[in-house]
Amino acid sequence: MDGLSRKIYLELKEPSREDAVSSQERILRALRADYGDVYMPYRILRMLYPICDASGWRLTVTLGWNGGRWEVTNLEKGDTTAAHYGVCADLGSTTVAMQLVDCRTGKILASSSVYNRQTAYGGDILTRIFYTKDHPEHLEELRRATIDTFMDAFADLQRQTGIVPEACAAMTVAGNMTMIHFLIGMDPFCIFSAPYAVRADHPDFLPAEELGFPFHGYVYCYPGRANYLGGDIISGLIASGIARKEEICVFLDIGTNGELVVGNREFLLCGAGAAGPALEGGSVKTGMCAQAGAVQHVRMDGQHFICDVIGGGEAKGICGSGIVDLIAELFLHGWVDIRGRFVPEASERIVEREGEYAVEYAPSLYFYQCDLDEFLSTKAAAATMVEYMMNLIGLTMQDVGEFQVAGAFGAYIDKESAVTIGLYPDLERSRLISAGNTSLKGAYEMLLHKEYLAEAADILDRMEYVQFGEVEDFIHLMGAARALPHTDLSRYPSVVDKLRKNGIQGF
Amino acid sequence: MDGLSRKIYLELKEPSREDAVSSQERILRALRADYGDVYMPYRILRMLYPICDASGWRLTVTLGWNGGRWEVTNLEKGDTTAAHYGVCADLGSTTVAMQLVDCRTGKILASSSVYNRQTAYGGDILTRIFYTKDHPEHLEELRRATIDTFMDAFADLQRQTGIVPEACAAMTVAGNMTMIHFLIGMDPFCIFSAPYAVRADHPDFLPAEELGFPFHGYVYCYPGRANYLGGDIISGLIASGIARKEEICVFLDIGTNGELVVGNREFLLCGAGAAGPALEGGSVKTGMCAQAGAVQHVRMDGQHFICDVIGGGEAKGICGSGIVDLIAELFLHGWVDIRGRFVPEASERIVEREGEYAVEYAPSLYFYQCDLDEFLSTKAAAATMVEYMMNLIGLTMQDVGEFQVAGAFGAYIDKESAVTIGLYPDLERSRLISAGNTSLKGAYEMLLHKEYLAEAADILDRMEYVQFGEVEDFIHLMGAARALPHTDLSRYPSVVDKLRKNGIQGF
Repeated sequence: MDGLSRKIYLELKEPSREDAVSSQERILRALRADYGDVYMPYRILRMLYPICDASGWRLTVTLGWNGGRWEVTNLEKGDTTAAHYGVCADLGSTTVAMQLVDCRTGKILASSSVYNRQTAYGGDILTRIFYTKDHPEHLEELRRATIDTFMDAFADLQRQTGIVPEACAAMTVAGNMTMIHFLIGMDPFCIFSAPYAVRADHPDFLPAEELGFPFHGYVYCYPGRANYLGGDIISGLIASGIARKEEICVFLDIGTNGELVVGNREFLLCGAGAAGPALEGGSVKTGMCAQAGAVQHVRMDGQHFICDVIGGGEAKGICGSGIVDLIAELFLHGWVDIRGRFVPEASERIVEREGEYAVEYAPSLYFYQCDLDEFLSTKAAAATMVEYMMNLIGLTMQDVGEFQVAGAFGAYIDKESAVTIGLYPDLERSRLISAGNTSLKGAYEMLLHKEYLAEAADILDRMEYVQFGEVEDFIHLMGAARALPHTDLSRYPSVVDKLRKNGIQGF
Repeated sequence: MDGLSRKIYLELKEPSREDAVSSQERILRALRADYGDVYMPYRILRMLYPICDASGWRLTVTLGWNGGRWEVTNLEKGDTTAAHYGVCADLGSTTVAMQLVDCRTGKILASSSVYNRQTAYGGDILTRIFYTKDHPEHLEELRRATIDTFMDAFADLQRQTGIVPEACAAMTVAGNMTMIHFLIGMDPFCIFSAPYAVRADHPDFLPAEELGFPFHGYVYCYPGRANYLGGDIISGLIASGIARKEEICVFLDIGTNGELVVGNREFLLCGAGAAGPALEGGSVKTGMCAQAGAVQHVRMDGQHFICDVIGGGEAKGICGSGIVDLIAELFLHGWVDIRGRFVPEASERIVEREGEYAVEYAPSLYFYQCDLDEFLSTKAAAATMVEYMMNLIGLTMQDVGEFQVAGAFGAYIDKESAVTIGLYPDLERSRLISAGNTSLKGAYEMLLHKEYLAEAADILDRMEYVQFGEVEDFIHLMGAARALPHTDLSRYPSVVDKLRKNGIQGF
């Protein structure tokens, strides 16, 4: 492993008249060939005695990359290279996911997911930002809450493994721009107010103790590209590997906002849009988060809906993955047409309620025409962002090498359903990739691969921002993408096949 | 000035939609061309708001070299480049000399010399070292005393100038190996016990706050070459400039120990010996330090001694520069012969006391034959160190380009007298240079010239140690150097001239 921290066991000859160099130089010269001029800070200078003599000059040196050079962050007696730990974290606005990693083998020893204590100051990011505005003491509360959240995760990891946080040699964090501002205690108001120039987007390597973490070593925070494209996306791109690929790939992160990157080792186009809420069930009448009681998957069996409810109890609402399934099933069974309109004659379960058509997908839970409209607009926006970028480079969706979808949404959504409604392109299914928590994965990769620092810098350099809002063409494309799965059916042969198999009229 | 700290006034455009880079990048990109990738630490990231906006983007950035790269150490509103201060210090075992420097002009704004509070734990270094042995809490007392000594100097400089220590941007310190160990709090016992491998000899750049100094920025401690050749000598060599010269020069630092370097831009030979005590008046019966009551200069007028007493009162004893004058005068007047023996027939003021000849140089103060013997042995050792090194490179004393004598001894000694007794070679007097506190001067130079970092590293690399103790030839040379001024009178034509002018027999 070639990570941001190293542990090196040294067996040194003790000082003699023939070789009377200092303890410091005795250690540093043994490292010079591999690590250049290593810096030995004040704390370590003061540790040289008695540890060098007391260990019989058999020492383990821990090095941490400080952004400019290697620095000694610990000295231990004997060979402790087997105990080389690090942590990587995805600092999300709702949840912080952290992993304790054996940096020698790359093995993930434990994972922890804790609620972000910032939520006490507001469920959504904007509420938290307004809370801190013009109140430095409130900003300090948010910073403290962020650190405390990490401390929760450290404690959880310790509970699982018995390994204390002090044993960590390095840490990597990926988070969006606001989260990183809160972590460092920087006023975040700028992130959401014109001209959207943030305070700092390259935190670089910060000493763990200064931030308030309980170990000696450095914390790397992924740099961000702009207010809406933070370190979580750069981290995600490192994890996705698309900046190293020859084929042109799509990286789509759907959360509260949607972030999109299209590119390969030669170019990277990026964009962002407020695509998220509806896709996550936010604008649907009975929509809810993916928590206990949410319908996460739906299948139709004749006139019946078979719902997979989180937690197994009674359905209380429907989350994003459930909605995608529901619309796909309604469409494949002819209950909704290509324009996204209920077809009341298809089933008597399509009823009129509150002046519009609706279907009861679970006891007393209805999915309305307006829900369909809302969701399809959002899916059209998301799909069009991708299509628009592919058009920009003169290619079609069929030229996409990999279509990677990051985040929880990507993890839980059913690929077939997503293709059916036209949210995903109709590609070989192996090219449709649920990438998972790429922000965390990128943090993990960086912890273990120092060479990705250069790749992250290169990605930032190469990223070109595409502004969707300003393009007339975009509106036109989006109109076509509003259909199920798309106005141009030739792009969705597998969906047409299914419709034909189901005997749906007009295909 | 091209020093270890910089202050740069920036007038930046405020963020706009066209140019919405972060506050951090807005500052760093303005510095990149001149300073490369500058590091902005945690403390400064947190200062970006509100100072950037509040100053209207008219900011002064303070940079400090941290050993690996430039680091932002302060941000101030408006143009404060006129207030750019640094301190340089010679950390001596008895006295700490410190200067407050205007880093913009190089002007020394104030100088302070304070007693080293370590003396409370022992007048000589060894006592202090033994005090700390196996007692970490005693070592901590010595470290604290060292910092407190610097604080005394900081306070004195503030009293003189009104400039607070917090206004400093950088600090340089030169001290011998023991002093630097005490400053950092490293166990120093190794310095004086075989095999003389010290703890650390390259402190590099340490954060001022960590050491306990009251400013933000870095402290550079000169590296040392070996236990007996510390940072004070490397600093002295930087000040002397001999490592840059074409002509071969001699650098001699006479203090408690004598350190010697002979060389030029191509080579540097170094050595050390316990030459000091006698030369400083230590082994002379009526010898004393250069303080009030000490005879610092002597002239003979016929049978009378005219003494210049420090403080102007009654003579209480004689210090090094007085002894050199006294011996020179006695010799030039024929009262002492070439072998360093009193010539009782030359004057009735040469009397027998306590079984040996002596002369009353001031009321009730006598200079004895044994004092003469002691002093001439020491001067022989010092002179022979130089001669031995010149011989090693196949040259004679006449080939010496500059003969630089550092330290208080060099500053107060009379050149003519030093030549007369053969302590200095008989060169053109302009080539005999009293170099002053070169340790402090080197610290001053480093503060203002970052390029000397490379020279200091180069000096350390090139220094070759010459071990005098092990050489038979040395003993032979020293015998010849014991004479006044030297057995080989042809080397001292100016002294022979004076003797002839005075009508002394045999010349």
